[in-house]
Amino acid sequence: MGLLSKPINSLNDLFVHTLQDIYYAEQQITKALPKMIAKVSDPQLKQGFETHLGETKNQIERLDQVFQMHGETPKAVTCPAIDGIITEANEILGDSKDSDVIDAAAAAAAQAVEHYEIARYGTLIAWARELGRDDCASVLEQTLVEEKATDAKLTDIAEARVNRLAARR
Amino acid sequence: MGLLSKPINSLNDLFVHTLQDIYYAEQQITKALPKMIAKVSDPQLKQGFETHLGETKNQIERLDQVFQMHGETPKAVTCPAIDGIITEANEILGDSKDSDVIDAAAAAAAQAVEHYEIARYGTLIAWARELGRDDCASVLEQTLVEEKATDAKLTDIAEARVNRLAARR
Repeated sequence: MGLLSKPINSLNDLFVHTLQDIYYAEQQITKALPKMIAKVSDPQLKQGFETHLGETKNQIERLDQVFQMHGETPKAVTCPAIDGIITEANEILGDSKDSDVIDAAAAAAAQAVEHYEIARYGTLIAWARELGRDDCASVLEQTLVEEKATDAKLTDIAEARVNRLAARR
Repeated sequence: MGLLSKPINSLNDLFVHTLQDIYYAEQQITKALPKMIAKVSDPQLKQGFETHLGETKNQIERLDQVFQMHGETPKAVTCPAIDGIITEANEILGDSKDSDVIDAAAAAAAQAVEHYEIARYGTLIAWARELGRDDCASVLEQTLVEEKATDAKLTDIAEARVNRLAARR
């Protein structure tokens, strides 16, 4: 949002704006994930990122569907939050040289992304219900379940092996 | 991190860097919260932010303690993620004119902040344990419990009243 954005005068305006924000965020994530896949070495982490890239593309289609259900044209607005989270991920991965340390940093960076999405989808679902759009809430709920599962899987991968290997450095 | 930063060659380097990152983030949050307190109208939301401002100052003291326990001088490094999350919060609050809509936007923005912190403290605790620093992990765990409680309280406030009032606009 910014000087040229539409003013936010209602919960519906907030809901649509936040849909546009997460629509942008998901698109940035589809660009960031291939770079992270290329950087990591742990096979399970690499596979986890590949699976999540597929899920993210599907999540964008779900957002297209929600925009349509709500009578809105899909549109992205710049989301400084995801830009900041991805910038930070690129910086930490760029500053790490050891492959085990890169894996630990990448898992942590991905969890920061997941948590941003968990916050936003949680809010969108609550607002959709308040606006009487249980249909939109149900579609968004499918994505929230995936984001939470990805976060939990990243915790498992990090704590089972990735962090231990990095601790030897 | 950036061109002039220390390279990250070990899990210990990652741990210390992420401590510095969240140290910066907590400081930015202590600057952002008073502005949010001034902007919101709902008494419970205002009180929630005031309580969390006090907690945040205490969390900074805990980070000072963890730096000291780990033999490091407390230091902040710019955290583009929290800067982005706060920029986005300021933009959405600046674009909202109605007090009920501002309250709903502020609760959501604060939950994005909380989720960033939940991700980072979760990672820091896992890394501290892997590094054999259960003492540091215990201190960081106290903050993680507070961040999760704040997030849950914000959900309660939003869903019990704030979102419903905003939906009338």
